[in-house]
Order: sequence, then C-alpha cells, then structure tokens
Amino acid sequence: MKKVAIVGIRGYSGLELFRIFYYHPEVEVTKIYATSHYGEKLSERFPQLEGLTDLTISEFNEEEIMAECDAVFFATSAGVSQKLALTFIDNNFPVIDLSGDFRLADLEIYNKWYKNTNLKNEYLLSAQYNLADIGQAKANYIANPGCYATATLLALYPLVKNKMIDLDSIIVDAKSGLSGSGKGLSDSSHFVNVVDNMSMYKINSHQHIPEIAQQLKIWNSNFQALQFSTSLIPVSRGIFVSSYAKVAADFDFETIKNAYEQVYATKNFVRIRRQMPQLSDVIGTNFCDIGLAYNPVTNVLSVVSVIDNLMKGAAGQAVQNFNQLFGYDESLGLKFMPSL
Amino acid sequence: MKKVAIVGIRGYSGLELFRIFYYHPEVEVTKIYATSHYGEKLSERFPQLEGLTDLTISEFNEEEIMAECDAVFFATSAGVSQKLALTFIDNNFPVIDLSGDFRLADLEIYNKWYKNTNLKNEYLLSAQYNLADIGQAKANYIANPGCYATATLLALYPLVKNKMIDLDSIIVDAKSGLSGSGKGLSDSSHFVNVVDNMSMYKINSHQHIPEIAQQLKIWNSNFQALQFSTSLIPVSRGIFVSSYAKVAADFDFETIKNAYEQVYATKNFVRIRRQMPQLSDVIGTNFCDIGLAYNPVTNVLSVVSVIDNLMKGAAGQAVQNFNQLFGYDESLGLKFMPSL
Amino acid sequence: MKKVAIVGIRGYSGLELFRIFYYHPEVEVTKIYATSHYGEKLSERFPQLEGLTDLTISEFNEEEIMAECDAVFFATSAGVSQKLALTFIDNNFPVIDLSGDFRLADLEIYNKWYKNTNLKNEYLLSAQYNLADIGQAKANYIANPGCYATATLLALYPLVKNKMIDLDSIIVDAKSGLSGSGKGLSDSSHFVNVVDNMSMYKINSHQHIPEIAQQLKIWNSNFQALQFSTSLIPVSRGIFVSSYAKVAADFDFETIKNAYEQVYATKNFVRIRRQMPQLSDVIGTNFCDIGLAYNPVTNVLSVVSVIDNLMKGAAGQAVQNFNQLFGYDESLGLKFMPSL
Amino acid sequence: MKKVAIVGIRGYSGLELFRIFYYHPEVEVTKIYATSHYGEKLSERFPQLEGLTDLTISEFNEEEIMAECDAVFFATSAGVSQKLALTFIDNNFPVIDLSGDFRLADLEIYNKWYKNTNLKNEYLLSAQYNLADIGQAKANYIANPGCYATATLLALYPLVKNKMIDLDSIIVDAKSGLSGSGKGLSDSSHFVNVVDNMSMYKINSHQHIPEIAQQLKIWNSNFQALQFSTSLIPVSRGIFVSSYAKVAADFDFETIKNAYEQVYATKNFVRIRRQMPQLSDVIGTNFCDIGLAYNPVTNVLSVVSVIDNLMKGAAGQAVQNFNQLFGYDESLGLKFMPSL
Repeated sequence: MKKVAIVGIRGYSGLELFRIFYYHPEVEVTKIYATSHYGEKLSERFPQLEGLTDLTISEFNEEEIMAECDAVFFATSAGVSQKLALTFIDNNFPVIDLSGDFRLADLEIYNKWYKNTNLKNEYLLSAQYNLADIGQAKANYIANPGCYATATLLALYPLVKNKMIDLDSIIVDAKSGLSGSGKGLSDSSHFVNVVDNMSMYKINSHQHIPEIAQQLKIWNSNFQALQFSTSLIPVSRGIFVSSYAKVAADFDFETIKNAYEQVYATKNFVRIRRQMPQLSDVIGTNFCDIGLAYNPVTNVLSVVSVIDNLMKGAAGQAVQNFNQLFGYDESLGLKFMPSL
Repeated sequence: MKKVAIVGIRGYSGLELFRIFYYHPEVEVTKIYATSHYGEKLSERFPQLEGLTDLTISEFNEEEIMAECDAVFFATSAGVSQKLALTFIDNNFPVIDLSGDFRLADLEIYNKWYKNTNLKNEYLLSAQYNLADIGQAKANYIANPGCYATATLLALYPLVKNKMIDLDSIIVDAKSGLSGSGKGLSDSSHFVNVVDNMSMYKINSHQHIPEIAQQLKIWNSNFQALQFSTSLIPVSRGIFVSSYAKVAADFDFETIKNAYEQVYATKNFVRIRRQMPQLSDVIGTNFCDIGLAYNPVTNVLSVVSVIDNLMKGAAGQAVQNFNQLFGYDESLGLKFMPSL
Repeated sequence: MKKVAIVGIRGYSGLELFRIFYYHPEVEVTKIYATSHYGEKLSERFPQLEGLTDLTISEFNEEEIMAECDAVFFATSAGVSQKLALTFIDNNFPVIDLSGDFRLADLEIYNKWYKNTNLKNEYLLSAQYNLADIGQAKANYIANPGCYATATLLALYPLVKNKMIDLDSIIVDAKSGLSGSGKGLSDSSHFVNVVDNMSMYKINSHQHIPEIAQQLKIWNSNFQALQFSTSLIPVSRGIFVSSYAKVAADFDFETIKNAYEQVYATKNFVRIRRQMPQLSDVIGTNFCDIGLAYNPVTNVLSVVSVIDNLMKGAAGQAVQNFNQLFGYDESLGLKFMPSL
Repeated sequence: MKKVAIVGIRGYSGLELFRIFYYHPEVEVTKIYATSHYGEKLSERFPQLEGLTDLTISEFNEEEIMAECDAVFFATSAGVSQKLALTFIDNNFPVIDLSGDFRLADLEIYNKWYKNTNLKNEYLLSAQYNLADIGQAKANYIANPGCYATATLLALYPLVKNKMIDLDSIIVDAKSGLSGSGKGLSDSSHFVNVVDNMSMYKINSHQHIPEIAQQLKIWNSNFQALQFSTSLIPVSRGIFVSSYAKVAADFDFETIKNAYEQVYATKNFVRIRRQMPQLSDVIGTNFCDIGLAYNPVTNVLSVVSVIDNLMKGAAGQAVQNFNQLFGYDESLGLKFMPSL
C-alpha cells in the first residue's frame, strides 16, 4: 500500500485524483495540501464528500511529504510546481505533475508560451514528459501531458511516426467542455454564456501547442508545425478532437487502419473504433477512443479522438503514470466503465 | 462469487446494473437476456463497452437461469416480469424486480394504476416491497421501489412514522431528469423539446403514487393521501424532490432534525445534510441526500431529497437489496463517490 | 415618438429593454447610462449589436434625462434607484423602475428584507407597484414587479381574490433559470455547477416573498403568509411556478376554472391553457401561461404558471407599464411569438 | 400586402417561416398546408400559438394556391417539392423551396446524393440556387440554400472567388445544433444521447457537400473539391463552421481581411467581426457573422462563420429571397436583434 499526497485540491483535477484513488486498491491518499483553508475537513469544503473521507487540508510541507509519503501529485495551476517542486527534484523524490510547468524541455520555447519562468534548464531536463499510452514512466519527475495534447497526440501518433501523411497538412480542430478551463470565474464560464453557445478561443495561441509540436518532432524529426484550434462546447467534461491530413503518396486507407490497430492492439486505454466515437463513450473512463475515415475525393484522412479531459486528460493518466513508475499494472484502479 | 442474470438490457437500468456489477467484488453477471438481438455481443450493441465484456445477448430461458445462476434481475418495462417471473416464484428462486409489476400488494389498486394485469393475488403477496435503506430484504422476490417513490419515502419516513406533521398537509413537488422516462422515443424526449425547457406531466396520475401511499400507510395507518406532482427538468440523471408539510402541534424544528439524524445515523446511504443538497452531490452514487428547513411564519417544514434515479432509484438499490438478501454487507460494491 | 433613457445596461434586463424598444413603433431609446465605460459604443461593449445601434454609453445625468427624454427606465441592481431616482420623483418625471427598491410600501418590511435603506416613507409611497396584467399604471413612479412575484401573483390572483382556497394552505415551489440570478460571477453560476444540476436556494428568505405577500394582502385582507421556495434549474431563461392549495369548502374545479377564464379573458398576456404549459411556450414573449389541475383525493388545486423572466418578469412588463402610463395600447411592441 | 402559402408545417423551418411572417409588414400567411391534420387549428396543433393565429391546416391544393396567393413556400422534407411543385413551375408561379430538391443543377450529381429522383432536367434547370447575400433572386423558382452550405459558402466566397488560398487545401469542420436534424425521432435525437455529448456524423457523405461544391465551382472554375465534416453539438439552434485553408502565395492577411470587408460592406446580413464570433451572437437573427485569424507558422487561415440554422440557414434566407424576388428591401421584416 503506497501513500501519496495531493498538492492542490481547489481545481477539478485534484478532486478527480482524489476520486480515482478512492477506488485504487494499492494507494491511499494520506495528505491533501492547499494554499488556504488549512485544518478544514475536506468534507466540509466539498460537502458532497460527507461520509467518504476524514482527511483535512494541510499547509504545504515538503519535509512532511518526503517523510510520510511515497509520491506527490501536483494538481496546481501554472507557475506553482516550478516553485514548490524543486526540493523533490533535488531529493529525487517521485513527483507526478499535472500542470504544464515541466512539459517543455526547451527553456526558450517555455518562456515564449508560459510567461516569466525562473526555472533552470537542468530542472526542466530532469522531467520526463510521458504520454502514458505510448511511453513508459521512468523518471522520478513525470510531467503529465495536457488534455488537448493527449487526445491530439494519440490521434496523430501512427500517422506522424510512420509518415503516412503529408506532415505539413495537419489541421486539428479541437473542442473542450468547460471543466477544461478550470473553476475560475469569468464571463466565459457563466452558465448563460455557455449553454446554447459555442466559441473559438486562444486562436493559434493555446499553450498546449508547443508540447504537441515537441512530441511530434520527437516521433518524426521532419515534422515542423501543425494548425491547432480550440473551441468551447456546452458540456462539463470531454475533449473532442477532429484531425485532418492529406494521406502521403505511398499509403492507402487499409494500411493506415492496420497501422492504428497494430500500434494500439496492446494498449489498455486506446480503442480503435469501427464507427466514429462519441464523447459519451469515454466520459468517466481513462479511454481514448479513435475513429478514422478516408475521403478519396480529397485524399484527406479524418481522425476523431475523444477523451474525458479530467481522466485520460489529467488525473487518470497521472495515475497511469504513477502505476508505471511504481511497477504496478498500468491499469490498476483505472478500469472504469462509461455510464449511460 | 455469485452468478447473476439480467433480463432486459435495452433500458437504462439494465445497463446500469451491468455497470455496477462490473465493479462488484462478489458478483459476476454471467447471462444477459433480451427480447431480440440474440447472439449479438453486448459490446456490439453498446459499442462504448468494447473491450470491457465478452458477454452476448441470450434469449430468455428460465431453466437456464435457475440452473446456472444464483439470482435474476428484471430490468424490464411494465408488464414483463408479471409474465416471465412466475416460474421463479413457484420455484422460490431469488428475483430482484426493478419494474413496477410486483410493487403493489393490493390487486384492486394495482389494476387501477397499472392496466390489464392477470396476476393472481398470491403472486403479488409473495413479493416483498423493500425500500432498502429502511427495510431488510428477506423474501425471494424483491420488488425494488420506484425512483420517485424512493426519494419521496426517504424524505417523509421520519415525519410520517412519528406523526411529526399534519398527515393531510403533505405536498410533494418532484422533478426528474430524462433517463427517468426511459429510452423510448417521443416528442417529449427529443433534445430540442427538453433543453431550455421544463414541464409538468402525469398530473395526479403518476404510477408511483400508489406505492408511496401504500408504504406511508404501513408506517402510519392514519395516513390517507398525499399531493404528488412530477415535472421534467433538462438533466440526464437525477431526481429532486421538494416536500412540504405543516408541522404537527407538539413538535419543533430541533426535534424534527434530531429525529432525521437519529433514524439515518446508522444508514449507509442516507445523508442528512446541513445545507440543502444539490442533485450533483449524489449523481453516480447510491446516496439519498436530505436537507431540511423550517419556516416559522407558515409553520411549514421543507424537505429536499435528491437521488440518482438509475442508482439509488433503480440499479443501486437493487444491488443493495441483493446484498441484503445474500447476507453481504449491503454497501458492498456500492461505495461510489460523486464526481465534479 | 417618445424618447426614453435606460439607466443600467450591464445586467440582463437593461439589454432586454433595449432589445424590446428596438422593435417598438412609438419609442426610441436615445440615451444609455451606466456606471462605467462612458463614451464607449454600445456595439463595442456588446459586439453582437454591431450594425444595430449607434448609441454610446453616457454618465448618469438626471438633468439631461429630464431635458431630453420622456421617461427613464432603471434596470439597476438593488440600492441604486433609491439613490438616483429621487430627483425624478421630486420633479414628477416618469420613472419605470425594474429593481426592487420601491416595491414595498412599508418601510419596516422594506428594511427587514432589503438591508440599509435610507429611503423616506414619502418616497416609497409615491411609487405604484403595478402588476401590469391586473392593474393600470397611473403614477409617475412605477415599481415593476419582480419575476418570481409576477408568475406567482398571476397564478394566485383569482384564488386569493375570491377566497376559493384555504388561504393558509398555499405552497409555492418556484424554479428559475440562471439569468434570473443576474450576470454576477459566483460558483453557483459557473457552467459546470449548473448543468446537469438543480438546487434550492434562499430557503424562506427570497426577497420577492414580501412583495408577493403585500399584494395578496391587498387582494384579500384575510391572507397572512405563503410558503415560497425557489430553486435553480439549468436553463437560461424562464420561471416555472408550481402552486398548491386546498380548495375552499364552497368551490369546485369547474367554478375555479371559470373564474380564471373570466378574470383573464380580456387580458392580452395571460393565457389560461387547456394543458399544463411548458417553459418553452412563453420564452421570448410577454405571456404568462397558466394551467390548472384538481386532485379530488387530496382536495388540492395545482396551478402551473410560466413566464420568461426577462420579458414578462422584467423588461416586457416594464414596457407594458410604460405603454399603460403613456396611453398606448398596452401590447404595443410586445406581441412576440414564441419560437421553436 | 402579399399573400403567401406555406406547405409543410410539421418541421422546424415551416413554423419558423410562419413566425417571421408574423412580424413582416408586407406579407400575410393566408394558407398552411400539411399532409395530415386537415381542418385542425394551427393553435391546437401548436398550443404555444394560442391567441396568435386563427389559421387552420389545409390539404394541399395547387389551384387554390395559385388563385389566392402570390407565392408559395415549400418547407417540406426531401422528395416532396419535386412532386408537388411541378405545376407551379409549369405556370411560372413563384416558389421558394427550402428543401434540397432543386438545389443541384446536374441531374447526375443529384441522383448520386439524393436517391430516386424522377425529376426531368428542365425542371432542375428552371430553379435558381440563390445564396441571398451574394446573389439576387430573379427566377420564379428559388432553391433556398441549405444551412451548412450557407455558413460555409459565405465563409469561403472571398477566398475562392479571388483565389486567395490553395484551392485544394480547404478543410471545413462544421457543427450543428439538433434542430438542424429535424423533428424526427431517433436515438440520436433523444435528450440523454445528446446532452453532455458530441458526435461526428455522415462522414464525407453529407448531402450539402454537392451544393457547396457546385457553387464554389461557379465562383472559381479551378475549384475541385473540399473536405467537409459535420458534427452534432448539444444546442438547439445554430451552425458553427470552422474553415481552414493554406493562404496562396501572393496574399497576406491584411489583403484577405480587406477583401472580406469590401465584399460584405454593402451586405445587410454578413458581419465581418473583429473578434471570433460566437453562436449566441446570431441566434434568432438573419446574420452570418464571420471572424478571421492567420497563423504565420503554418500559413493557415482560420475562418469561423456562425448562423442560426433556422433563420439565415432556412426561413430567414427564404424570406430574404422572397423580398428580393418581389422587389422589397431584402431586409424587410428580417431585422432581428440577438437576445441575451
């Protein structure tokens, strides 16, 4: 039985982590840290948890974590873990970081997309960006991929890796539910502005673009850039990614489908679907479902990939990374069935 | 490890049962019966289950069930179990019936609210209507309470039992999400007619009224009738019941609150809340959350009770009844935490 | 052609007023006042209005209003018009006030429900609280009824006026969409907390209770108090009120229905419906639709009344009051047809 | 005052037409035809219209229409007008056809996308496909463009016409609300399957593809084909189209923006927006709002266009075409302001 701490419980992903571990047979959450509400019972702050936990909220204490826990999860907003996690790195203590702070290996790119970091390059390099369905967590600092990045990368992996498409033709039209934007209050999260509505945001400037590009370049050094857009749809959870690309000269649809099926045949959480998947197929689960279609008239391949942004796109993948790192079956405690 | 069969998989509650048992440590669903699609894989009919089950759909066969299973669940629509379940009753084989077919003990009342039954009285009487959070499943035929009935009865139990209210003053204004009306296609379930809308339906004629009245009369023979209305709200899951009644002469709010807390202190799935509960507090769980408020100006007690209609209001309570009947801890496999 | 000013454009009702007058054949909005953004074009602040108006936002100036306009509408939050409107009262200049500041005639009650007023009694008494479908606007200061109050009062008017019910048995279970709570940002207006959810709020303490009670007492001096609860449902617009009461000894359902039909036969905006109305029947219109049902078992009459909270419950009724005050047909510019 | 008939009132667009004409100062709907419910009052069939119309439903009668009306609108499903409208063509009587029956000028393409037509080529050729914001209605048979086609064509017009993009690089990712799929009952329109969900459908096979291609080819004979996908989002109304294309060698973003502004400067219903538009900006109106963004890294232009599918995408544009054909200002009766 491992003991873990969660830093950051105010946001969606911290609470989702807590919920996943509630079912996990080999892990107990023993400490919850936040930047306020010290001493308050978790079930008071989140009354829906009444009767389900006795934990209280503690003030962040790195010594305590290293003394009493086996690993720590950062479910904090941008800029926090780059300050609070350094001691763990210095001590080689296992960290799973759900934030974007350690996802980019290149300090220059980092500073362009995330403002004002003071991180030293050596720290950035100590982190392993691990898309858990493709890679294997090894480093003691795991940078857990972003939600958009996860759904996009899993959709594009076989294509880019094997150069089955023209690499400069990739167009990604991604949509997210509101929990993807966090609990922060703004006009754009007010119910009346969201329901019956759809809007595109952060055009050509979403902070997940560089981590997608970084990973695609690792898979294929010929890759340069992708067109990536993000829109809000009126759902709570879920990311729906439509990717389009021109099929490369030597490939046909059969070959491409086979490549997907082969690549993901042994993967626990990626399902290549015969029909196009819907969001509801994966909500509440750690699955990424992928569907494919080919248009001979335009020579364009369409790929739809869907995930639950808080599960596969955040807390679920974080636990999967933890499982890998600690030598458990990666699917331990993560076999959720979609409902309805 | 017990083996169970589910009859009826087309509706919401059959699939929800299947989902709960997927997590249950002591039960395996070994057979699924439906009235069509024999031989089809469950994961073909419900593609979101791909990779999660190898079961196929079978044609109903009572001998097979009694030979191979320990119990059978009927998740069928009205009128089915009163035909298909009789052999099980004759053989004293355990049945948990989620439909309304065996909920009313009085044939006359039954025939008034449910049309055209040919059930003999002895069969009706062999069934135990068991509100699992109050009663204890004992009979081999369990009539699982309806969703509205469950939320309403748990809200009214302490009041009616102890006559803490004027029994003829009860007004229940109940609201349900769309899954409560089933998967049937009608104008009233079309997305465009539901979203941004609310409507009252089956005024003074909802079929859950007699089972509520029957149970309240058992708790207090002075009870005569209650005013009960049902409305549709634009959510998938959830029942939100607002109950109102005049407080009886000898009682004050403190006493009433204490009665609720005492009655439900030892119950696994009823939470008396300090604030008024919201639907989201219980969705995905087997909880019924209850909140209370008293208005000294009108002498009216307001009780809000919320449940997930497919869990506590159907499949969750059915498994709880099963657990009781088979001597397991009633909460086995039912400790779900609400999400978001 | 009359010229009017709108004070307060940040909230929903100010913009809705502007939208109604856009279609009104006899009125032009010539000035818009707000507490900030002076000089900004309305179509910049609300980009959806691009091409539809050239107005800019002005700093409040009572002299300007009285010099250039025929009337002023206050679409401001609580506490504003009691400060800014006094000069208009002193000068007997027509004001339609959509806020709650002048709705209560009794200073003591006012101070109990709305905190910290410094209003003098004479000012309160100069205002006419006019439920436009029942009364006739005459005073130069019109206190426009609240949204909940409007739907509730129109539902109860024939019953209370004619004492067709036991006056101490009234239970009102009212539900509102999110625009009823305004544009303010709070956890309870965040999309994720509203969608798929329902919650009761301000139990026994909603500020519309005293204006309802005040009006019912005017209609029938025997009336004392009513039980009134308010819940949020996941829709943008709309108020759905379920009212219940015991039918008084000398009345039957036919008589009651006839009374409703007679009372509202000559009214432009109240429709007594044969079936129970739905929210969608009135959204975008100035209608209040009312449906009735009687339960002989409990002797309870159920009344469902639905309105669009921003139209009949705010801006629509305000224009109706304006039309009455200025001698126009009260329905001028208000004949909207529901859509979908 | 013109008199018009509407054929088909069961679907959304027929009722929407009726609603628009309710406000139109120069047109009266004098006849409503449907395939059933003859003699029934419209306000009985659609109770939300109570008090707003005295019309009854009639059995289709072409002689009556030509004798009593000035024009007829077909708001029927596919396959109806190709049978019922021929006499009108023979008699050169004005028809506005909202269905897809006469949109394709090439019988071969027609038969490929719409099955089983018996239409003669001469009839097809007598119809004018008129995108009202670009063309001018002249023919007595107007084929009103489809909803997806309208939003897509208005987004692409300046680009394709002036060849400012690589014509073989167009990717269109279009999303629609549920009213776009009609009132038909199917699993995919059931509330529970739509809410909290998103799905792609009719991949590479949507019947609006050929009419888009046909029009783009007219604008630029070098155009060959476009990649076009359609998804359902959980809203009632609205089409949100994201179009992507590589900018052609000789053009920069400034030039492109200027081209859009110039082309649409004199158009009543197309607004080139400074920010990306949202669906809610146009719901209830006849506007098509368009936003542009350029990504220098990928050389991709992103165009977002939004419309109300029942207004600009159906009934609104139909009235605009009618206005053009009868010599009225094309915006007569169509100046709607978005709400909320």
